Amino acid sequence: MAVTIPDGYEPLTPEALPNRLGALPALTGRLGEPGGWRVREVGDGNLNLVFIVEGAGGGLVVKQALPHVRLVGDSWPLPLERAWFEYNALIRHARRDPGRVPEVLYFHRDQALIVMDFLTPHVILRKSLAGGVEHPKLAGHLGLFLARSLFRGSDLSMPTAERKADLALFAANVALCDITENLIFSDPYFDAPMNRHTSPQLDAHVAKLHADRDLKVAAQHLKAAFASNAQTLLHGDLHTGSVMVTEDDTRVIDPEFAVYGPFGFDVGMLLANFWMAYFAQSGHEDRPGGRDGYRAWILDTVDAIWAVFRGEFTRLWRSERTGILYQASLYEDQGDALASEQALAELLHAIWEDALGFAGVEMHRRILGLAHTLELESIEDPDRRAPCERRALAMGRQLAVGRRHFAGPADVRALAERIQEEDLS
Amino acid sequence: MAVTIPDGYEPLTPEALPNRLGALPALTGRLGEPGGWRVREVGDGNLNLVFIVEGAGGGLVVKQALPHVRLVGDSWPLPLERAWFEYNALIRHARRDPGRVPEVLYFHRDQALIVMDFLTPHVILRKSLAGGVEHPKLAGHLGLFLARSLFRGSDLSMPTAERKADLALFAANVALCDITENLIFSDPYFDAPMNRHTSPQLDAHVAKLHADRDLKVAAQHLKAAFASNAQTLLHGDLHTGSVMVTEDDTRVIDPEFAVYGPFGFDVGMLLANFWMAYFAQSGHEDRPGGRDGYRAWILDTVDAIWAVFRGEFTRLWRSERTGILYQASLYEDQGDALASEQALAELLHAIWEDALGFAGVEMHRRILGLAHTLELESIEDPDRRAPCERRALAMGRQLAVGRRHFAGPADVRALAERIQEEDLS
Repeated sequence: MAVTIPDGYEPLTPEALPNRLGALPALTGRLGEPGGWRVREVGDGNLNLVFIVEGAGGGLVVKQALPHVRLVGDSWPLPLERAWFEYNALIRHARRDPGRVPEVLYFHRDQALIVMDFLTPHVILRKSLAGGVEHPKLAGHLGLFLARSLFRGSDLSMPTAERKADLALFAANVALCDITENLIFSDPYFDAPMNRHTSPQLDAHVAKLHADRDLKVAAQHLKAAFASNAQTLLHGDLHTGSVMVTEDDTRVIDPEFAVYGPFGFDVGMLLANFWMAYFAQSGHEDRPGGRDGYRAWILDTVDAIWAVFRGEFTRLWRSERTGILYQASLYEDQGDALASEQALAELLHAIWEDALGFAGVEMHRRILGLAHTLELESIEDPDRRAPCERRALAMGRQLAVGRRHFAGPADVRALAERIQEEDLS
Repeated sequence: MAVTIPDGYEPLTPEALPNRLGALPALTGRLGEPGGWRVREVGDGNLNLVFIVEGAGGGLVVKQALPHVRLVGDSWPLPLERAWFEYNALIRHARRDPGRVPEVLYFHRDQALIVMDFLTPHVILRKSLAGGVEHPKLAGHLGLFLARSLFRGSDLSMPTAERKADLALFAANVALCDITENLIFSDPYFDAPMNRHTSPQLDAHVAKLHADRDLKVAAQHLKAAFASNAQTLLHGDLHTGSVMVTEDDTRVIDPEFAVYGPFGFDVGMLLANFWMAYFAQSGHEDRPGGRDGYRAWILDTVDAIWAVFRGEFTRLWRSERTGILYQASLYEDQGDALASEQALAELLHAIWEDALGFAGVEMHRRILGLAHTLELESIEDPDRRAPCERRALAMGRQLAVGRRHFAGPADVRALAERIQEEDLS
């Protein structure tokens, strides 16, 4: 892939940053004069430069894309334009669910640079999930974010000309889509070069999944749905590493994979990461059963996310259904509000089924593919980690292939608990 | 809707045409010098100016968009850019199924003008279907066109960056999509201002359909699929008025509604128009049973279109599956060609179900909505026409709501024959 680098693009350094950005009112207004700025580079993700800049008046984050994958280097080029898609997603998310994403203070397209709130004392949700820390407001915040961002980015709500223009805008996010399309839906199911798994403990399980015909057909149907079914603007990478939390607050970050896709994608990827965290607990507890309470909290959180999502989606359906789909003129205006309720129930069930399918492949790629999770990777002993991973692989397979056969969250919860307790993996 | 008119755009007239286009080698090369051109305006469609230009060396068609709907006038503005989408679709169709569309000789974007082959002695297929004329090669040509245009415009075949760029290009065809979205999926199901039907004969049936909750829910699910599920480049208006025929030849014209959408849309709309023609025969026969043979030919044609489509789609799946979906690396390359066959069978069945749903709503909108069909409208006596229309409405309802429950074409044929013979409508 050839990456275009605009004239004048130059990666920031902590030393150069105050000089290069010190004249911007968006920054000096928050931080004070650049002479007093303290700058640290903290990017621990896979792709970008991330600076925390602190000054007399507070702190900011400066995120800049590099023309390659930071984790890998020059050999894996990646377009700078991803900052443009992230910026566009962030400002839409801020409108659609105010307060749930970091505020954007400044954006420069050619420098692939976004300046936004420094979230403090927030931590990445994965740390809490590995550490056994509960967040009482988390499920409510995430359920609302899913419902609002997905409903309000779709033809259920938007003027269709605006929705189609956004579809076209985000259709150019080819390179990051390509990562999703390959790393989630294909690579886990054959010996792709960048795959890795806990070996030799999982070797036999991996071979079994690679030979699983129904699974590999299901995964590609899901890939086709991801690539084609442009129902709404997705975050595109909504796992528990893209969520920052405190006791009271929740923020969704890093939407550079944003693209139009199926409602169920963000929902499923998010739930999958909770289910993986659930199976990871036995690698973290200090005695058998030591994390029983936390395990239950994780499953309660999944139930609550789905319940809040359903509730808010339903509220928006009844109060903000101003788009071209399922118009009131066909239903309520003809005195048949139950037709609208029927359509809603069918749509929510379709989203549920899709979400389970996407969850299933997400649980595979995080154990078989390139990118793993902190919750599982931080279990250092492979003999302790492997059984956790095996359980997650087994559940992922049931969800991907059997996604049509779970009536609701209670069925999936029962499956997770059975796999955990009886080790059916 | 505000329509932008480029500087210098001016509708052609037969008188002005030789002067304005007479210097173009694309025209003079085919027609000879403009002094000898004979020009007739023949647009009998709803939207555009169409001129036939004949000269010493042959004939050409000049098609020019008007900034409004010709059938309605200035009160219904429509963007000139539709010529741009038609041109782009025509050149793609010409590549994907050579010889099945008129050749484009010249295109001018600001004049919204396409110069193409004059097809002669071709007639619009609707004329044949109203007149009882058989075309032995028709089904083969249409089945191949469907398979090739749909397969080759999708992520099954195209480089995905190119597919996504095309998705973005055609996503701007908002105004014509809007016509489809409203006229096909919504207007037929409530008292929309432009609706018309054979009255009073069908009044009770129309009221029943307007009160049919399951139908109205199904129609909107189909609308959602049309608006969101960007599987491939559609012709977008592939009815029997968009097909020109001779004894030996078949050409598909007028793709100005082209947009990315579900595989099943073109297939379903085309089959629906054959089924409506089937039910129209009893309004045209000179004695009961006089068109029995032709009725059977129409159903044979439907069966053959689907069989040829399936066969060619299968051939392309096995030989040209070079896109990002259902990659050989997961299937054939692992020695599991049957996984690929399983995915194909599931995809073809999903296309079939979608096609039946789209066929159902197409059969409703052509009888209840703005645009009707020659095959039915040419039955002048409303008491003869109404029973034909009633049967088509009844079949459309079964297809739209029951689309998941027809195993294959034999089931649908049996339904059509039963409705025709027993008048279950």
